[in-house]
Amino acid sequence: MDFELAKRLQKPNTTKIVLCILDGLGGLPRHETLRSELEKADVPNLDRLAARSEVGLTVPVGTGITPGSGPGHLALFGYDPYRFDIGRGVLEAVGIDFDLGPNDVAARGNFCTLDRGRNITDRRAGRVATEVSAKLVERLREIRLPGAQVFVEPVREHRFVLVLRGEGLGDEVSGTDPQVTGVPPLEAKALSPGSSMTASLVNSFIAQAEKLLSGEDQANGLMLRGFAKYPDLPQFPEIWGLRASALAVYPMYRGLAKLVGMTPLPCPGGLDEQLEVMRRRWDEFDFFFVHYKKTDAAGEDGDFERKCHAIEEFDAWLPNLLDLHPDVLMVAGDHSTPALMAAHSWHPVPFLLQSHYCREGNNEHFNEQACLKGSLGTFPAVDVMALAMAHAMRLEKYGA
Amino acid sequence: MDFELAKRLQKPNTTKIVLCILDGLGGLPRHETLRSELEKADVPNLDRLAARSEVGLTVPVGTGITPGSGPGHLALFGYDPYRFDIGRGVLEAVGIDFDLGPNDVAARGNFCTLDRGRNITDRRAGRVATEVSAKLVERLREIRLPGAQVFVEPVREHRFVLVLRGEGLGDEVSGTDPQVTGVPPLEAKALSPGSSMTASLVNSFIAQAEKLLSGEDQANGLMLRGFAKYPDLPQFPEIWGLRASALAVYPMYRGLAKLVGMTPLPCPGGLDEQLEVMRRRWDEFDFFFVHYKKTDAAGEDGDFERKCHAIEEFDAWLPNLLDLHPDVLMVAGDHSTPALMAAHSWHPVPFLLQSHYCREGNNEHFNEQACLKGSLGTFPAVDVMALAMAHAMRLEKYGA
Repeated sequence: MDFELAKRLQKPNTTKIVLCILDGLGGLPRHETLRSELEKADVPNLDRLAARSEVGLTVPVGTGITPGSGPGHLALFGYDPYRFDIGRGVLEAVGIDFDLGPNDVAARGNFCTLDRGRNITDRRAGRVATEVSAKLVERLREIRLPGAQVFVEPVREHRFVLVLRGEGLGDEVSGTDPQVTGVPPLEAKALSPGSSMTASLVNSFIAQAEKLLSGEDQANGLMLRGFAKYPDLPQFPEIWGLRASALAVYPMYRGLAKLVGMTPLPCPGGLDEQLEVMRRRWDEFDFFFVHYKKTDAAGEDGDFERKCHAIEEFDAWLPNLLDLHPDVLMVAGDHSTPALMAAHSWHPVPFLLQSHYCREGNNEHFNEQACLKGSLGTFPAVDVMALAMAHAMRLEKYGA
Repeated sequence: MDFELAKRLQKPNTTKIVLCILDGLGGLPRHETLRSELEKADVPNLDRLAARSEVGLTVPVGTGITPGSGPGHLALFGYDPYRFDIGRGVLEAVGIDFDLGPNDVAARGNFCTLDRGRNITDRRAGRVATEVSAKLVERLREIRLPGAQVFVEPVREHRFVLVLRGEGLGDEVSGTDPQVTGVPPLEAKALSPGSSMTASLVNSFIAQAEKLLSGEDQANGLMLRGFAKYPDLPQFPEIWGLRASALAVYPMYRGLAKLVGMTPLPCPGGLDEQLEVMRRRWDEFDFFFVHYKKTDAAGEDGDFERKCHAIEEFDAWLPNLLDLHPDVLMVAGDHSTPALMAAHSWHPVPFLLQSHYCREGNNEHFNEQACLKGSLGTFPAVDVMALAMAHAMRLEKYGA
């Protein structure tokens, strides 16, 4: 639904909407059994819920398109993922709870190993330990650049975030990672006139950094990519008229939620804590985004059984959530991560919506095959929020 | 998928993609048996393949729209058939292997019979024999026009192609066929200022031609329509990053493929030769478009049984193709040609895609009913290439 239309049609109500995103939920059948992770997993609660829900398959971005986490979530929040784009640098920065502002350009950084000729011998600096990396990052904080503040923040192993804060810094700058070894890092280049200052600051940062790191064996160089400014996104609470919260263990998903104006409620303890926080703050919000990462992590590792277990863990927890009696409950995925592929994929994702107003009664299971036959059919993920709003009785009639 | 996005996301791989287009594949059930051509035909190989494939129905252009060969094929190649239009004249010209260039305007020509008052008595000149027609065409080659080269090429029976080659020739010219008898042919009119020269050359051509043909009994007049310039289409190999070949018996389909930048590999001998050429040149290409005409020809003739046989002939040949082990194999149709209608139709067309990454296991057949229930659902033909690219692992992830 177009945001202008959403703002025009939204109406107040006291109903509660819960959107559970099981990261990488969709799967593929193993050739031996012809059963996917969801088909294999024992999910009595999801199956029972499906029987009184509407189910379908969501297309995250478009046919054949494999989404990253950004587009996958944005679509489920109602944002056209072709129109709204969040750069890698910003995702990394919000992923470590860095408080990005409108004058910031963020980039993803990697330590790497350079030989005496400045050629890259290891693009990940031997996956240098997180503690070591954190100390190197502290050293890089000594770097001073003219006209911009410099922030360097550790992430994990060889990865860090660089943020340049200053007036007039564009983000159209090419990355310095050549993607291969045996050559030197690339120079950062401005891809538009408005980004020439950023490019020159970045190159100066790299030159100073290499001096500071020159004594290191492994992490004596670095590469930067994914330059991106803080995106100016329409705000979810205004679009939909919902006081919205995000319950996520991982900072990246809290960060994503924050970019669209949701209130992140940290829940490092996982599902039980997510439930506890939700229960405690039930009256303060109309919308609750619950993020569950284990499905994707297992899928990315190519671990079919562990993904089944992750699904079963969610299923076992589900009755607690039902006890809160949300008016609209959705179980969705931002994309598929079939264990068979050990990667994100383009396959449509099982989706379930339960409310008082469902065409129910025909679903016996919650999985890829059952959702294919569901009343919602195969539909764009970007339509999910309009559906949720309708079932929450939060949309006016369109036209007289 | 938008072509800019396709160019951005495409990544190299060694995978092979084969797209078999069974012309006019879709059908309609006979009222007596309630079975369509595909449902009646005995297709054990297609059925077996369907069991480990994803199937669905493609909508060639749009709901209710019956496509010609041009839009039907363009859509399957990933071109929005509303945006990219190939004129009739160009299709006719490429259909006879005429080497069209950017300064050419092509038109489809028909000989007709005129009475003494110059009124049309037969719009097809009694379907004058191909040999006779070819001689008349030779006579028309004597015609000279100021500022333009004239090419006249025979097609079949009463049909021929006229090509005018010159600077500044527009193609927005009205046809001269009044579509009825008892009236004279229409005058060609420029539909835009840039086409006035073309219109005047066309009218001069017709006047000279009628003098040259005045002694003929049957073919003493002619009509021209479908004026069209060589279309400047984005090129398939660049859009998708695929070295693409076309294996087609009929020139029109080779011509269509050439217009989008595929390399036509003539195979006059039909399926066996198509396979042989494919096998021989397997390493040279990433993409193979195999065209099969017999399904459409039988459908156009209203011959239900012959269409079933044509489908069975393809089915019997299919195992040879499977022996090449393409990474992605598609069986598609450019449109439906139900024998019941003896014409192209708007009905969605059975589609099948086989790869290592299919949600498989539930299809027992390959036909209209089975495809309707398939995992791909009913979807636009223009999305086929994005799907093929995904299954060929030739697309990068979208967004971070």
